[in-house]
Amino acid sequence: MSAESDLAVIVLAAGKGTRMKSDLHKVLHPIAGRPMLEHLLASVAALAPARQVVVVGSGRDQLETALNGRASLAVQDPQLGTAHAVQQAESALAGFAGDVLILYGDVPFVAADTMRAMLERLHDADEPAVVVLGFTPDDALQYGRVIAVGDRIVKMVEYKDADPEERACNLCNSGLMAVRAADLFALLARVGNDNAQGEYYLPDVVNIALGDGRVCAVVTTEDPDEVAGINSRAELAEAEGRWQQRRRRAAMDDGATLVAPETVWFAWDTRLGRDVLVEPNVVFGPGVTVADGVKIRAFCHIEGASLATGVEVGPYARLRPGAVLEEKAKVGNFVEVKKATMGKGAKANHLSYIGDAEVGAGANIGAGTITCNYDGYFKYKTVIGERAFIGSNSSLIAPVKIGADAIVGAGSAVTRDVGAGELRIVRAEQLVKPGWADRFHDAMKKKKAEKKG
Amino acid sequence: MSAESDLAVIVLAAGKGTRMKSDLHKVLHPIAGRPMLEHLLASVAALAPARQVVVVGSGRDQLETALNGRASLAVQDPQLGTAHAVQQAESALAGFAGDVLILYGDVPFVAADTMRAMLERLHDADEPAVVVLGFTPDDALQYGRVIAVGDRIVKMVEYKDADPEERACNLCNSGLMAVRAADLFALLARVGNDNAQGEYYLPDVVNIALGDGRVCAVVTTEDPDEVAGINSRAELAEAEGRWQQRRRRAAMDDGATLVAPETVWFAWDTRLGRDVLVEPNVVFGPGVTVADGVKIRAFCHIEGASLATGVEVGPYARLRPGAVLEEKAKVGNFVEVKKATMGKGAKANHLSYIGDAEVGAGANIGAGTITCNYDGYFKYKTVIGERAFIGSNSSLIAPVKIGADAIVGAGSAVTRDVGAGELRIVRAEQLVKPGWADRFHDAMKKKKAEKKG
Amino acid sequence: MSAESDLAVIVLAAGKGTRMKSDLHKVLHPIAGRPMLEHLLASVAALAPARQVVVVGSGRDQLETALNGRASLAVQDPQLGTAHAVQQAESALAGFAGDVLILYGDVPFVAADTMRAMLERLHDADEPAVVVLGFTPDDALQYGRVIAVGDRIVKMVEYKDADPEERACNLCNSGLMAVRAADLFALLARVGNDNAQGEYYLPDVVNIALGDGRVCAVVTTEDPDEVAGINSRAELAEAEGRWQQRRRRAAMDDGATLVAPETVWFAWDTRLGRDVLVEPNVVFGPGVTVADGVKIRAFCHIEGASLATGVEVGPYARLRPGAVLEEKAKVGNFVEVKKATMGKGAKANHLSYIGDAEVGAGANIGAGTITCNYDGYFKYKTVIGERAFIGSNSSLIAPVKIGADAIVGAGSAVTRDVGAGELRIVRAEQLVKPGWADRFHDAMKKKKAEKKG
Repeated sequence: MSAESDLAVIVLAAGKGTRMKSDLHKVLHPIAGRPMLEHLLASVAALAPARQVVVVGSGRDQLETALNGRASLAVQDPQLGTAHAVQQAESALAGFAGDVLILYGDVPFVAADTMRAMLERLHDADEPAVVVLGFTPDDALQYGRVIAVGDRIVKMVEYKDADPEERACNLCNSGLMAVRAADLFALLARVGNDNAQGEYYLPDVVNIALGDGRVCAVVTTEDPDEVAGINSRAELAEAEGRWQQRRRRAAMDDGATLVAPETVWFAWDTRLGRDVLVEPNVVFGPGVTVADGVKIRAFCHIEGASLATGVEVGPYARLRPGAVLEEKAKVGNFVEVKKATMGKGAKANHLSYIGDAEVGAGANIGAGTITCNYDGYFKYKTVIGERAFIGSNSSLIAPVKIGADAIVGAGSAVTRDVGAGELRIVRAEQLVKPGWADRFHDAMKKKKAEKKG
Repeated sequence: MSAESDLAVIVLAAGKGTRMKSDLHKVLHPIAGRPMLEHLLASVAALAPARQVVVVGSGRDQLETALNGRASLAVQDPQLGTAHAVQQAESALAGFAGDVLILYGDVPFVAADTMRAMLERLHDADEPAVVVLGFTPDDALQYGRVIAVGDRIVKMVEYKDADPEERACNLCNSGLMAVRAADLFALLARVGNDNAQGEYYLPDVVNIALGDGRVCAVVTTEDPDEVAGINSRAELAEAEGRWQQRRRRAAMDDGATLVAPETVWFAWDTRLGRDVLVEPNVVFGPGVTVADGVKIRAFCHIEGASLATGVEVGPYARLRPGAVLEEKAKVGNFVEVKKATMGKGAKANHLSYIGDAEVGAGANIGAGTITCNYDGYFKYKTVIGERAFIGSNSSLIAPVKIGADAIVGAGSAVTRDVGAGELRIVRAEQLVKPGWADRFHDAMKKKKAEKKG
Repeated sequence: MSAESDLAVIVLAAGKGTRMKSDLHKVLHPIAGRPMLEHLLASVAALAPARQVVVVGSGRDQLETALNGRASLAVQDPQLGTAHAVQQAESALAGFAGDVLILYGDVPFVAADTMRAMLERLHDADEPAVVVLGFTPDDALQYGRVIAVGDRIVKMVEYKDADPEERACNLCNSGLMAVRAADLFALLARVGNDNAQGEYYLPDVVNIALGDGRVCAVVTTEDPDEVAGINSRAELAEAEGRWQQRRRRAAMDDGATLVAPETVWFAWDTRLGRDVLVEPNVVFGPGVTVADGVKIRAFCHIEGASLATGVEVGPYARLRPGAVLEEKAKVGNFVEVKKATMGKGAKANHLSYIGDAEVGAGANIGAGTITCNYDGYFKYKTVIGERAFIGSNSSLIAPVKIGADAIVGAGSAVTRDVGAGELRIVRAEQLVKPGWADRFHDAMKKKKAEKKG
């Protein structure tokens, strides 16, 4: 049996990603708000590998920053094929004698269970030298074929070298491989580049092992999507679409109503309670937790926020990181909440900006209220007491505190603290000019007529 | 012939709805903004039944509230199968001697015409004891089969009891049934529970009647979607999707342009005129009427509103219940209108909240205007005269009236009525501090540098 | 060889368009923000025709306005069939002796290359009298058939007149035709109306030419969508959908990330750079240019705007015609920008209206800021200096200038110019009433209780 702590993972990420037409390294393009490499590493983490090596070509700096020490980096330069790429990991694995799993940064959704199945097969009684992950697509296209009897491989063959009978076989090579470290590097050393492209191909290690009389086995995934490679923005969008479709289905199975599931976009870590209602067109960024019975109306955009039981938001609510909505709080249309707590039952229903703030339970934030949290240099905090009533179109100029039960008159720019139970109005005299508007209209109509005339 | 007034309807709604994972009774989950039970009852209403009985298991209180006396409730407890469920309606139908139609609360989209066809078949010359509604799905799965010659039933058979030949038949039992009251309860009394689950199955009444030498007939719907049951949130979403697709198609057939039909969500009662333009991503809640030639731009959310000829709204307009937009009125981006009339040609184009208001014809509501209609306890009304001009960022503190042709200066908080043709400005002196900003910038840059340093 | 300058185009647009149920002429209904007739004329323009004739039935005025002299109009009244329609173009083509291409206003997406292929075939050595554009749909339905051997036509046959063998042929007649002017009108004069509808059918010219022993040829398009006719709003929506799908794919191929491609709507002329990110639900109107590296977040609506490198907009940004966002400018949620330039790095992040304005580089527009650009009669301009800081909820009453580095205090209504480095605050005294709010709450609670009691 494979001891998982005796595992090393090699992630190939040296492809040029030309078809992406991007300055961002291909494996760092996100799906569901998370770089595809991170999706893969999260699955790998379930196997607790002793070592991880990422083989990189161009874009090394980007990967170094992204990995931040979580894996060794091996550089492949020049790039002479997949076998050559894996060889670059050899020094990083010096002294390692366990199993090696070869993965691909642009094949991010291989399940941990699939990886486990490959490793387990590697330690079956017939002791295969190499275990390959195969898949059976509806249309085998020009994938390399795995010619096998049962799960014993007879031959690995590139499409272009395959004869008609081999091409008729639809068991394809995903490229993923499990192999003991000792075998791996010994086999790799024997791979040649005597082919049209002059490249060293990884599948050759299987054919070499077979030539040695070793057993090689194939583990076949039932889900071809699991090994789908992402080489273009269109394939990125397709992978995102498949991910979202699975996530939406899971949300519904867990007891959320998605009125139009195809218009809800989840992030990789969105957590959703039971009897949550999600109306059409809702976008979740990372870091969102939604408790039971929450109502999310149409056109909401929610990132890094926490919504407690009975909360109702939207339509058109924008919750940004640090938004904490306590039980039954309400955030309505055209309201942005950032780094702010809305206490139990507090409401901000219309056209407001609540940033760097604490809003007490039961407080009512009138339409058009702005917490002025920024002076161009620093951010300041607004604290609003329980049951306080902030009149419409008010500007709360932070740092400022509004006491419990206090009232701020509509249109006030509040610069000093307001005491509990106090009324604060900032308002000038009403200047009245009877007849002025009538005279203005007359003059303007005349001017407009002159301009036209 | 069946006299429709001689009709009773039994709606089974006693299923536990476990797969919904909801505190809300399954048949109360809405589709197109209307509980599925209501969709069914609306179709039933076209047949004007003399009596309606809903058989309920758990969630009785919710159904009692929802039905509010429109139907009798019969409780099935314990739940011993579908035949047993129908039996619970017997006392509610005491003295009733007409036809009975057996329907399902989670099969909400059976057309009235289909029900009529079943009842008519019941009164054909061959006098069937039972008429079953059959359907022929693309994939018959594990539905119970209706074995028939022509439309005469030979045998009802559960999938698990069916032999291969019977399974090959794709005429399936929807569960819906038409049967005379006298026959129904006599047959039900003879149904046994000698089966694996120990349950009393409704299809058995057909087999018992056949055993008596009675004729039983099947009416087959051509639209399998009509009898689709809804047992999970995923099936709820699918039913919603099918409903929307039909409604969108009807809207286009009636002369509305839907730029992206798949992104427009109608409510069950949305009324749309001719030459209406609906841009992508528009959500209609219940109670909306849209006249000819209206332009609804992208990202609008419209509930309980009336839009007259030539109105233009959006993008990002939110119309809430009681919004009445008269001819050629305009409501623009990030504007919310609630319980308010916008007179002919009146405009509120940007970032405003118009609630509990009457806006006169030709009035112009500046950007950022808020009607302050709430003091935390009561709501008050704002009345704006014809052709009045409300300057931007104004707060109209209700109750308040602005006269015809009056002008309110930008940024004013208006607490007292403004006369016709009057100018009202609420504005303090402009405090000028030359050089202050430059000194502030210097000080802050220094402070920022210190913090970093 | 066909000299393109020796080309005339006849566009048939005389159909009643009854199924559209519209007051707008069918060929003026837009796809991707551009009337379908314009799509067709844009393709035609690539062939630089010497003359263009549009044959119109009803709605002549609308077409005259739309064409504005770019093509002759010929009126078909009464409407006696397609051959009769083409005949109406004869006088407009008096003296013209070149090639004629017969197109349809409601078949807008025929590629210029397809038209060229037809014209080239017309001048092949076998000198066909007529070249017909054929297509091979998956389901040939009731289209007229082109019976041909190789690309030589044997017979044109209407579906209703076709025998089973002819119906089995799926080469269909698109209606498009290339023919020399001299041949065309001579052949048309010989078309009869001895058929069930009493109409003159255009395909008859082929049969007449064949009867004369002339060669007639078919050019077959590989893309049946190219010749799809648009006769209803549903077909309009389908054509829009196909257009969008192709455009989305092209955007991704060119290096833009569309997180959810199916929710991005492009206009016919949208220009998108490399490494542009487009989140779900973005609508582009005509006239948009997006440079490299721009980030367009969810729910944006963008028309007539220019976004320079590194710009970030949204979610919920509305950019209207004349919005120019210079390098790294930011426009955030619930912000509308119209006819305004945001300088390099300038920000307007929340709930603002920026219209008829110049915002200097590095300026910061606080939440809730409104440029008051309209007095009900004329529009005026706001000029904001570099690095100026506009406090939240301010109203800038145009015409007004804010100097470089100036600061406007939150909640100010600014009517006079603010100098560079100056602080301007428009704010009244803070009126404080300790205990007032508490007394108000007591009184209101009592009143509320009385109302209920």
